[in-house]
Amino acid sequence: MHVPYELSLADAARAIAARELSPVELTDSVLARIEEVEGDLGAYVTVRADEARKAAAQAERDIAAGRHRGPLHGIPMTLKDLIDVEGLPTTASSRVRARHLALADSTVAARLRSAGAVLLGKTHTHEFAYGLTTPQTRNAWAADRVAGGSSGGSAVAVAAGEATFAIGTDTGGSIRVPAALNGVVGLKPTYGLVPMDGVTPLSWSLDHIGPITRTVRDAELVLAALTGHHTTEGPSPTVASLAGLRVAVPRNYYFDRVAPEVAAAVRAAIAQLSALGAELSEIDIPMTEYVQATQWGVMVPEATASHEQTLRTSPELYGPDVRVLLEAGGLIPATDYLRAQRARALMHRAWARLFDEVDLIVAPTVPCTAVHRDQEEINWPATEGTEGTGSTESVSDAYVRLSAPANLTGLPSLSLPVGLDSAGLPIGMQLIGRALDEATLLRAGRAYETTHPPVTRFGPPAGHGAPAPSLAPAP
Amino acid sequence: MHVPYELSLADAARAIAARELSPVELTDSVLARIEEVEGDLGAYVTVRADEARKAAAQAERDIAAGRHRGPLHGIPMTLKDLIDVEGLPTTASSRVRARHLALADSTVAARLRSAGAVLLGKTHTHEFAYGLTTPQTRNAWAADRVAGGSSGGSAVAVAAGEATFAIGTDTGGSIRVPAALNGVVGLKPTYGLVPMDGVTPLSWSLDHIGPITRTVRDAELVLAALTGHHTTEGPSPTVASLAGLRVAVPRNYYFDRVAPEVAAAVRAAIAQLSALGAELSEIDIPMTEYVQATQWGVMVPEATASHEQTLRTSPELYGPDVRVLLEAGGLIPATDYLRAQRARALMHRAWARLFDEVDLIVAPTVPCTAVHRDQEEINWPATEGTEGTGSTESVSDAYVRLSAPANLTGLPSLSLPVGLDSAGLPIGMQLIGRALDEATLLRAGRAYETTHPPVTRFGPPAGHGAPAPSLAPAP
Repeated sequence: MHVPYELSLADAARAIAARELSPVELTDSVLARIEEVEGDLGAYVTVRADEARKAAAQAERDIAAGRHRGPLHGIPMTLKDLIDVEGLPTTASSRVRARHLALADSTVAARLRSAGAVLLGKTHTHEFAYGLTTPQTRNAWAADRVAGGSSGGSAVAVAAGEATFAIGTDTGGSIRVPAALNGVVGLKPTYGLVPMDGVTPLSWSLDHIGPITRTVRDAELVLAALTGHHTTEGPSPTVASLAGLRVAVPRNYYFDRVAPEVAAAVRAAIAQLSALGAELSEIDIPMTEYVQATQWGVMVPEATASHEQTLRTSPELYGPDVRVLLEAGGLIPATDYLRAQRARALMHRAWARLFDEVDLIVAPTVPCTAVHRDQEEINWPATEGTEGTGSTESVSDAYVRLSAPANLTGLPSLSLPVGLDSAGLPIGMQLIGRALDEATLLRAGRAYETTHPPVTRFGPPAGHGAPAPSLAPAP
Repeated sequence: MHVPYELSLADAARAIAARELSPVELTDSVLARIEEVEGDLGAYVTVRADEARKAAAQAERDIAAGRHRGPLHGIPMTLKDLIDVEGLPTTASSRVRARHLALADSTVAARLRSAGAVLLGKTHTHEFAYGLTTPQTRNAWAADRVAGGSSGGSAVAVAAGEATFAIGTDTGGSIRVPAALNGVVGLKPTYGLVPMDGVTPLSWSLDHIGPITRTVRDAELVLAALTGHHTTEGPSPTVASLAGLRVAVPRNYYFDRVAPEVAAAVRAAIAQLSALGAELSEIDIPMTEYVQATQWGVMVPEATASHEQTLRTSPELYGPDVRVLLEAGGLIPATDYLRAQRARALMHRAWARLFDEVDLIVAPTVPCTAVHRDQEEINWPATEGTEGTGSTESVSDAYVRLSAPANLTGLPSLSLPVGLDSAGLPIGMQLIGRALDEATLLRAGRAYETTHPPVTRFGPPAGHGAPAPSLAPAP
């Protein structure tokens, strides 16, 4: 029997609808879990326990009175602290925002509020979403490992039972990277599908917002609320077969400089998609040599453009890593930015053509599992069969490398857990689909998770010889 | 009785449809006119007389055989030499393009071809469209005056009877400015309405393509072909009344630093719109202090981005004025470009709101008539009632000042002739409308021209004491 904080959103919603669980009971359970583990994890910027209890009590009364708003009603959740909620500060985990107060809800906050979700608090982001580690927060599976970023607080909270679901943002992988590194599900929807207004921008032409959940089914329920499509239906039926689904495995790029255990877990998951009926093929990914320069060439100037005033008046308020990036952005010529945007337009077109032949592309989300908190570089061995002594890559470059193409192209990408490595750390697989075809990603992801239920942080990571977790699971 | 080259497109089309005029006769008349005046005007980069005669003969046979394609069938016209025609060079009036050859038709060339128009040749642009004078070409009304630019060759050809209509491009006013300065009609349609593919870009987010004609009715006919809406209908009925049309006159900006004779002619034309039934009101134009910085801030880096390779390999092939602009574009920080794009987004929104209250805005197209060919600056006297000694403005800045807002906002703008100044030089008025509402601009413009038929270069500019034209009108 699960304790309430362990329940998936879908299971909690079902129990609430059946009056087997009350929103207050669920919220209290999650708040108790926060009490228990937050000191070690550092996922939250702020927890609003009293307000959450009040909102849960209101949801309980509304549901009892027959005003059930749908699956998110009474479900406790957290928002990455880039997302405006009326009357609360949006700190962006930065000293720059010490005096900030949001005057109105972001569209996302308003939609979740109207769906009846219970706001627990705001979770840490890498400062202004400009990094891949979220140093304030620890990985939910191993305290000495990075949370991933920039939506690290949100992913860790969901993984550790500190929220039933969370919202993150993703400019180069910031939903999917921490989701993968913490063994949860992260969905970056198609560019523009979920409105970004009231969300602090990092790079407006690359920014996305989406759910972080424990299951693919849960991501589906949250996406419906984020897009304004509330539903009062119960859970949709289990996906039994993927017959007819054309799934492509990249020949190049996505399996280069990838840890062998990560590649093996993703390939095993792909075999499972095939066993479910998907037709596998191989595909060449176009323009991969431009990904890194294009991602940085677009992101860095756009990020600086949003911070010009503060950079002039109080640069010392930024952390040193973010400050150096923001200041560097002021030195990039407009023609370099435009060259990046033009490369991106070609990339966009080339990727769109891939989906003439296939329905989705499968790949690792990140090339390795969570690195140690003080690790700055990753050493890749020489590729088998070629000469040379291998290569070194910064952690940021490695973590963004496989997720950035979906930001540059705006295509939807779903990361889901596909097992643990020999150190007991989660591995993520991403599914990339055609624009606005989130439904196909979710269908494939759900079929996979039906046969391979996610291993949660709460149960023992069976048979993987994981080190004793620093946080004891609740009884 | 008009000789054929003097006919408007609508009149020529009517005569062709009635078998009173053959396409060959018309084309021969225009080619003879080119022979006669081109040596003095310099409008054409290249004239393809033989091919034009062949195309006219083919049109004549097709029409005789009952395959009449519509009003453009058999009509001789010219394209600004930025527009690709399969098998011809696109010189952009630049030495950089000495060895260029277009491998395919631009969409515009293909649409005109399919409408049966007869291509006479390619007309001069200010080099790569990056200037407001077109120095190779002389004003159709006075040989010592600038043609205006950048579509100077196209406007002069239409004004002087060297083409029945022409196509130009407009990034900051390049259709409307030379149209105004040569007493013809120029239409910059809504951004994106007419496809730009196969047209050499200057600044892709500001570039537009559209017709230059002798009447508003002609602009309507050409626009239909450019948008792919061929029509075989005869001319639409005369617009009798503008009752119900809400016309706004700017209180600020558009009449500041404007030559008194230009302002007077435009205000007289506005009074005529009122006499036709339009309801006049006054309006405050928003964000005018940002127009110049935003126009240049967007245009200059985008222009350089298109020329980076040639700038590196052979900068000496550019004219000195264009080279300095292109090289300057490489020094602009990306954040300045992004600041301009952000200001532009706000401007776009603010202008869109203006059209909640009004249907169109009327203003001068350019603040003065054609300047002398060696004039580089314009001296504006101190404004009446204020202190100071006046101000000086470069010719480029002055010519782009009133036309650029429609490029920044993408709104359609129609320039039409509203008389001559005391030097006998044409004055233009522009009508700016809501996005994709070209119909309203054309309706108002046609109503005006019904009561004030355009004074053409062929007839004597009656009662204006114009200097003896350097080009004798044809008998």
